[in-house]
Amino acid sequence: MNKSKISASIITIGDELLIGQTLDTNSAWMAQELNKIGIWVRRRIAVGDVWDDIWSTLDEEIKTSQIILITGGLGPTADDITKPLLCKYFSGNLITDEAALKNVVDIFEFFKRPLLEVNRKQAEVPNVCRVIQNKNGTAPGMLFERDGKIIVSMPGVPFEMKGMMTDFVLPELPALFDLSKVEHRTLLTAGIGESFLAERIKDFELSLPQHIKLAYLPNLGMVRLRLTTIGNEESLINQIDEYFSILQQHVHDVLVVNEDISLEEVIGRLLIEQGKTLSLAESCTGGNISHLLTSVPGSSAYFKGGVVSYDNSVKQNLLGVNINTLNNAGAVSEETVCEMAKGALNSMNSDYSIAVSGIMGPGGGTEEKPVGTVWIAVSNNTKTIAKKIQLPYNRRRNIENTSINALNLLRLLLLNRL
Amino acid sequence: MNKSKISASIITIGDELLIGQTLDTNSAWMAQELNKIGIWVRRRIAVGDVWDDIWSTLDEEIKTSQIILITGGLGPTADDITKPLLCKYFSGNLITDEAALKNVVDIFEFFKRPLLEVNRKQAEVPNVCRVIQNKNGTAPGMLFERDGKIIVSMPGVPFEMKGMMTDFVLPELPALFDLSKVEHRTLLTAGIGESFLAERIKDFELSLPQHIKLAYLPNLGMVRLRLTTIGNEESLINQIDEYFSILQQHVHDVLVVNEDISLEEVIGRLLIEQGKTLSLAESCTGGNISHLLTSVPGSSAYFKGGVVSYDNSVKQNLLGVNINTLNNAGAVSEETVCEMAKGALNSMNSDYSIAVSGIMGPGGGTEEKPVGTVWIAVSNNTKTIAKKIQLPYNRRRNIENTSINALNLLRLLLLNRL
Repeated sequence: MNKSKISASIITIGDELLIGQTLDTNSAWMAQELNKIGIWVRRRIAVGDVWDDIWSTLDEEIKTSQIILITGGLGPTADDITKPLLCKYFSGNLITDEAALKNVVDIFEFFKRPLLEVNRKQAEVPNVCRVIQNKNGTAPGMLFERDGKIIVSMPGVPFEMKGMMTDFVLPELPALFDLSKVEHRTLLTAGIGESFLAERIKDFELSLPQHIKLAYLPNLGMVRLRLTTIGNEESLINQIDEYFSILQQHVHDVLVVNEDISLEEVIGRLLIEQGKTLSLAESCTGGNISHLLTSVPGSSAYFKGGVVSYDNSVKQNLLGVNINTLNNAGAVSEETVCEMAKGALNSMNSDYSIAVSGIMGPGGGTEEKPVGTVWIAVSNNTKTIAKKIQLPYNRRRNIENTSINALNLLRLLLLNRL
Repeated sequence: MNKSKISASIITIGDELLIGQTLDTNSAWMAQELNKIGIWVRRRIAVGDVWDDIWSTLDEEIKTSQIILITGGLGPTADDITKPLLCKYFSGNLITDEAALKNVVDIFEFFKRPLLEVNRKQAEVPNVCRVIQNKNGTAPGMLFERDGKIIVSMPGVPFEMKGMMTDFVLPELPALFDLSKVEHRTLLTAGIGESFLAERIKDFELSLPQHIKLAYLPNLGMVRLRLTTIGNEESLINQIDEYFSILQQHVHDVLVVNEDISLEEVIGRLLIEQGKTLSLAESCTGGNISHLLTSVPGSSAYFKGGVVSYDNSVKQNLLGVNINTLNNAGAVSEETVCEMAKGALNSMNSDYSIAVSGIMGPGGGTEEKPVGTVWIAVSNNTKTIAKKIQLPYNRRRNIENTSINALNLLRLLLLNRL
């Protein structure tokens, strides 16, 4: 693959990453941000709070990468050894940084908590680094240089690390390295599997010049396709745009959006454009569709609310589902899910609604309606469309997949394609 | 740290992991499972779909770990190079595995899809490995041996990998290696920060024998504490239990549960024990509390449902909040959140309820009620308790933190501690 000349390694430190108790969200975010400014992440390594393992990992990565970003191990407890290790690695001595100390003191005053000796120690840094102040916590970051290479140490707490990256590291790197420009063009498809997509655009993929790469990024029944090119020539932008436009034609019938945004953001935009509102009636997804929609800032402009109708009495009392429908067709049925969708429209006075009812497992299945049976309905004032899907996954994945399916059905209704 | 003698490396392969488009949940899960059977994960490495990087990573890890688990790069598209690479690395030839081919054919027949040549190729494996059949997908896994070390390659799709680990790899490893037993004891605290916890149990930590380790695992305002011991002596179990009991006394006032389960599972247990039901009125958390509660299998036994009352009209119509309250005190106020809690009890006929209303950001803040202002109320038939919190995070984290705070307040009410 045609990489940028500048490559980075991300080292995350902490036993909690190696016993699986903590999910490493830091390095994914860091990789994303580095990628945007033309830095290829060659490797991501997680090591425990083990002196020799951290030391040898640092040795290895410094050999091959120009930029080493390290997170974790800067906390106040005894198992945090990153700072003394880096101090020794770069032959420094620990000194108190006055700005970092003031920051620690201010934070403890704000929260009206007593300042402990361990907290005061957080303001100590090796005298051979540039100090990165922490606006969101007590532990300062550190930047070391060796042989033209940059080694940065940051806290493992995601929003502390993100603050330092955004305010200091990401603006600093282009000044230190001659970075190539990276251009991405991403589109989102729904309703087609990765291998069918690959078969369909096989010839397109073969027609791509060496310096434009295609990546398949599947996730929960949707596949993102991304074109990438690295280089400083102006002509590359026109070229990637041309190929991106051809790619869109190849997938026009399954294309959701030609940007790198989520399905819930697409829904939000459509509703805003049309000046319409949405309400939900969720049974088996238990609030997950509401959660997805309201994770988007500004969603209160179009999202009126939802009813999580786990119990049948809630379906009756808050959504007006007829008791006879529940008794005769059952809670997981076309009839019930359509009444739920209409009930949401009425009770929350919205223009559009989504309703879902199904069996997510592991229990609750029957021979007639096994685990994974789901009914979805979308509705507006003129029509209500229902669809049945059958999912083979575990509870969590069934919930996620149902949510995506339901949002996509609404998208098609909003586009008048149902 | 006193590790088990057998150590493992986890290598995850795929450009998508290095550009940050995919969160690596696989290796956390694998590390957890390996840990349970006494295998210490020394390093986790993510590399791109780059031949030389994969090859050199494999070289390095084989030097120091006895077990190498690899995921990813087995898909049907051209960027998937794990299989040819491993075939060359172990000097084999690709042959078609009949059982794997039958599996591929069966899957395509079940979904009534045409079998493509790329799919048929998935049944090819190096003739120098043991084949691990894939019950959940098309790509088979592979197990190689070299100099008493084990190298396993599995698909990157989480539930395919998990199926192979559970059915084959995890049962196989104890037969191949002499594993020490690992014992963990984990407890969950709420309402105390990591450094205060560390200060409080400093003497306890110093009193621990060399072979019992204490780990702090903070997450969203809650901290897990875990004791670990590795070894085959029967006496270790009594010893870890004794120290665990002392640890519980040290944190008795902030202890949520002395098991490694989530707060929403604790709530579920309390409700089942007391034979009580729960309903929710969520505004700013937008369905996330419902989502957390309903992620627990069997939650329909105690969770009646919820109203996501994003719009004020929904607060009025479905929860019976008085319009004067909304006009005078505002949507984010003690008065409103208490009416929401009582409204949830009434409209969904439950024994307990939680209500939240706040400003999650980035927009919507005022001087009087800045972003991060949240009111939480919990209620039963005899009392309603409200609490105000002020959060400093971004939207997503404010939502997560509010949800945990609200669930913890309900826990205290269920325990009659409010």
